[in-house]
Amino acid sequence: MARLPRRRAVTDMSQQCLIGVDFGTASARGVLIDAETGVQVDSAVHRYRHGVLSQALPNGRRLPPGYALQVPADYLEAAEHILTRLGQGRQVVSIGIDFTASSPMPAFADGRALQAALPDEPHAYVKLWKHTAAQSYADDVNRLGGRFLDNFGGRVSGEAMLPKAIELARQSPATWSRCERFIEAGDWLVWQLTGSECRSMDFACFKAQYTPDEGYPSHLLPGLSERLGPPTAVGTAAGELSERWRSSTGIRGWPIVAVASIDSHAVLPAVGAVRGGALVGALGTSAGFIAVDPTAHALPSGLESAAMGAALPGLWSCEAGQAAFGDMLTWFAQTFPLAPDMQSNFASYDAAASAVRPGQSGLVALDWFGGNRIPWRDSGLGGVLAGLRIGASAGEIYRSLVESLCFGARLIVELIENGGVPVHEMILTSGLSRNALLVQTMTDVLGRNVSIPKIENPTAVGAAIHGAVAAGLVPDYIAGSFRYGAGSKRVLEPNQAHRAIYDEIYGAYRELVFDDSVRSVMRRLHGVSARWQG
Amino acid sequence: MARLPRRRAVTDMSQQCLIGVDFGTASARGVLIDAETGVQVDSAVHRYRHGVLSQALPNGRRLPPGYALQVPADYLEAAEHILTRLGQGRQVVSIGIDFTASSPMPAFADGRALQAALPDEPHAYVKLWKHTAAQSYADDVNRLGGRFLDNFGGRVSGEAMLPKAIELARQSPATWSRCERFIEAGDWLVWQLTGSECRSMDFACFKAQYTPDEGYPSHLLPGLSERLGPPTAVGTAAGELSERWRSSTGIRGWPIVAVASIDSHAVLPAVGAVRGGALVGALGTSAGFIAVDPTAHALPSGLESAAMGAALPGLWSCEAGQAAFGDMLTWFAQTFPLAPDMQSNFASYDAAASAVRPGQSGLVALDWFGGNRIPWRDSGLGGVLAGLRIGASAGEIYRSLVESLCFGARLIVELIENGGVPVHEMILTSGLSRNALLVQTMTDVLGRNVSIPKIENPTAVGAAIHGAVAAGLVPDYIAGSFRYGAGSKRVLEPNQAHRAIYDEIYGAYRELVFDDSVRSVMRRLHGVSARWQG
Repeated sequence: MARLPRRRAVTDMSQQCLIGVDFGTASARGVLIDAETGVQVDSAVHRYRHGVLSQALPNGRRLPPGYALQVPADYLEAAEHILTRLGQGRQVVSIGIDFTASSPMPAFADGRALQAALPDEPHAYVKLWKHTAAQSYADDVNRLGGRFLDNFGGRVSGEAMLPKAIELARQSPATWSRCERFIEAGDWLVWQLTGSECRSMDFACFKAQYTPDEGYPSHLLPGLSERLGPPTAVGTAAGELSERWRSSTGIRGWPIVAVASIDSHAVLPAVGAVRGGALVGALGTSAGFIAVDPTAHALPSGLESAAMGAALPGLWSCEAGQAAFGDMLTWFAQTFPLAPDMQSNFASYDAAASAVRPGQSGLVALDWFGGNRIPWRDSGLGGVLAGLRIGASAGEIYRSLVESLCFGARLIVELIENGGVPVHEMILTSGLSRNALLVQTMTDVLGRNVSIPKIENPTAVGAAIHGAVAAGLVPDYIAGSFRYGAGSKRVLEPNQAHRAIYDEIYGAYRELVFDDSVRSVMRRLHGVSARWQG
Repeated sequence: MARLPRRRAVTDMSQQCLIGVDFGTASARGVLIDAETGVQVDSAVHRYRHGVLSQALPNGRRLPPGYALQVPADYLEAAEHILTRLGQGRQVVSIGIDFTASSPMPAFADGRALQAALPDEPHAYVKLWKHTAAQSYADDVNRLGGRFLDNFGGRVSGEAMLPKAIELARQSPATWSRCERFIEAGDWLVWQLTGSECRSMDFACFKAQYTPDEGYPSHLLPGLSERLGPPTAVGTAAGELSERWRSSTGIRGWPIVAVASIDSHAVLPAVGAVRGGALVGALGTSAGFIAVDPTAHALPSGLESAAMGAALPGLWSCEAGQAAFGDMLTWFAQTFPLAPDMQSNFASYDAAASAVRPGQSGLVALDWFGGNRIPWRDSGLGGVLAGLRIGASAGEIYRSLVESLCFGARLIVELIENGGVPVHEMILTSGLSRNALLVQTMTDVLGRNVSIPKIENPTAVGAAIHGAVAAGLVPDYIAGSFRYGAGSKRVLEPNQAHRAIYDEIYGAYRELVFDDSVRSVMRRLHGVSARWQG
């Protein structure tokens, strides 16, 4: 990976290009990449017209708590805008897309979104990954149990596809009866682009509990089976961009559209995580950790999900995350601002926290400000600050929050390694990987070298690599990663003195994590506060 | 106590008056009271010239950590200023004083302060109550143990007189050999005012482990016995104000000077706590709770100290406190200000916290921001905030701190009652008793009526009542309290709905208080942070 930077302007419109588009929660972000040199030529962002519908439908109809819906047409608008902006007049060889998941939607057999026909019906909309109203159906499924939960620690999440399908069928049987296809929005978008339905193995395995041996657990909902479709491996061509799309975007050539992938997985080839032993931490609003290995393992105890050949062909991957990450720091800085604008505010906090020496404050925090995913999977738990003294500074408290995020990450890394999954390279990416205090603290807390690939728009680049593999521009993801992924990386080494101190504080953190009383106290409190909401 | 307000101007200089002076940590505060009507005529404050010496002596000599010294002459200056300001030209019948304790000092046999002769010797100064450098000598005493610790839960505090005497003798034998009297600064001041040494039973029992049966435990330090003196009950005349003082202050008449009392005890007669069943909570920077009863009890488990007939004649009293109280709220508001000036800042926090309903936030705090006194007596422990969620507001957090102070108070009240001491009236006084949010929360958390006496300068008024009793102006403290103490009180009643919610949250608080892991975690953290200080 020690190549020279290769960014240079590409102005020749005859040059072949790839496009990758990352469909996130609030917007889509696309990149245009020179197919030969790998240079990122251009990028574009488009916010969804309706954003996330959590309070009301566009017609004003109020939504119950826990709803998070989207409008399918918003994705088409974003796709058309980005593909036109990046591709108009260009020779585009491939288009890869990644998408939030599980964000399923009902459709007609011809691919039209049910929502377009039933704009007043909440259950006709896309149920975004963070729609939590289906949790009780997940609880029902979990009570029944079954082998399909083996790769999910025995529990399907309320955010998965199955509970959302059951919610639709139970709460709006009329909509369910008109629903001919129940499909991830990412797969639906690929269908719209190519004209033919092609579902992603990545969505199927990780979000719909599909296994090659047993298929989908669709026996849990009558009529589900016929509304799904067989998944295809990522890195496969789903089809060509349709004539209609070529015409509306002005794209030249006949670009291959790749099978979609999950947004959190798309980053893997962009940051070089294409071989066994890589562990990628995507540090954003929340944090996700994905380990890849050519050997399939049982899901390590405490982790959330695993599948073979789904995120990347031939690689087993497992994942887990922290419910709150960057949003914890944002919340703190917004609630207790040191400066009027957020940029100066964060800069002030970073400076104040950086001046504090590890262990100096006597503070330790539990990073459960968004509930706990690992190891307790209990969204009702809350964060803790312990060891507070009169005289504690805002910078000390902020630092203890930063440290707690790193301790939470260390717990996940330890669970992965304890599960027998080798970790040879720890790779950090996403927004918070640009925070010097956070990444050095992470390095010191993990007590191992940490790589930070240098790359802009890594998720969209990863989507583009999926397209390149699908179009045969490169033989595999290793080659795709080499040509189109991060050209270089920064490697941080732990400060050994800090590492030793953090070993001690991490011991205290673990003691709080596994203390029964701490959780019992929070469950009591949660019970009391829930009464006010009800 | 349902008398009419009796404040009115008294301008007749021939009218008889009392003076009470409260010698606090930073300043002395005196009141002038009409002996007949009980009206508070005037008050005066004087800050000590040298304040608290914690970094260096006046000559610049650096002091070790944990030092807190004062200059005896500062008290004389304050006394002269206040007595002159209040008493000049007036007929003063009595003077009562209260003083911080244990704040002992070495003196010559004629009453001169050793410090005046040895201004470069730290051990010749007053060692203020918050001087903690003698803790290791307290630890030594506690290892030896003995019956004299029965009224102190088996432990003498590092702030008590005995460890400070041992520290002086061990660390500066030359000073010890010149020291002819080792005396509380309050007793020394009475000596200065009257010309004859007269020690207080209050200081002796509570701060020097004196018991009428066994005397002082002076066997623990050779030479201590001959440097102490027999104590006299409070409410007794120590002598008349000397000719020198009458002349320098311009006071007319021959005022009786009363035996001194401990500042935290002086408030008792001023707020009506002169009968069994009264429990006074003095809510200031820290909080102290004193229960009085005519029957002597064994020290209730978990409490800090008790004595019969020391704080008030004929009444047994026991006490315990919270290391941090108002200073916790001040720290929080200063660290995370909502407004530029502290008054608006507190007003903003009070308003924000008052808008939060009990239990709504899902938060609970441990009020150990200054270490824990009850039940663990461990100054190395720290505070906790638990149940933090992204979205928690500054007002919610502030309210959880207010609630934690009340939970800490409830724990103390429960220990007192569990020890068999009746509590018929809960009386709150001092600065924080004026905070509406705090006192209503206290009432709801305690689940019982709470009285808040209406009185200005209650501690100095209490000192004046000691003088009135000593001078025979009133036959006893009940009469003194009636004539000179608070004329009325406000009684708060618990909101029953809030009380039920707080019962639940208090259950969570107790679970954290008694959780072994919480303390283990803090001891680990304290160990790590202590290394940075060393």
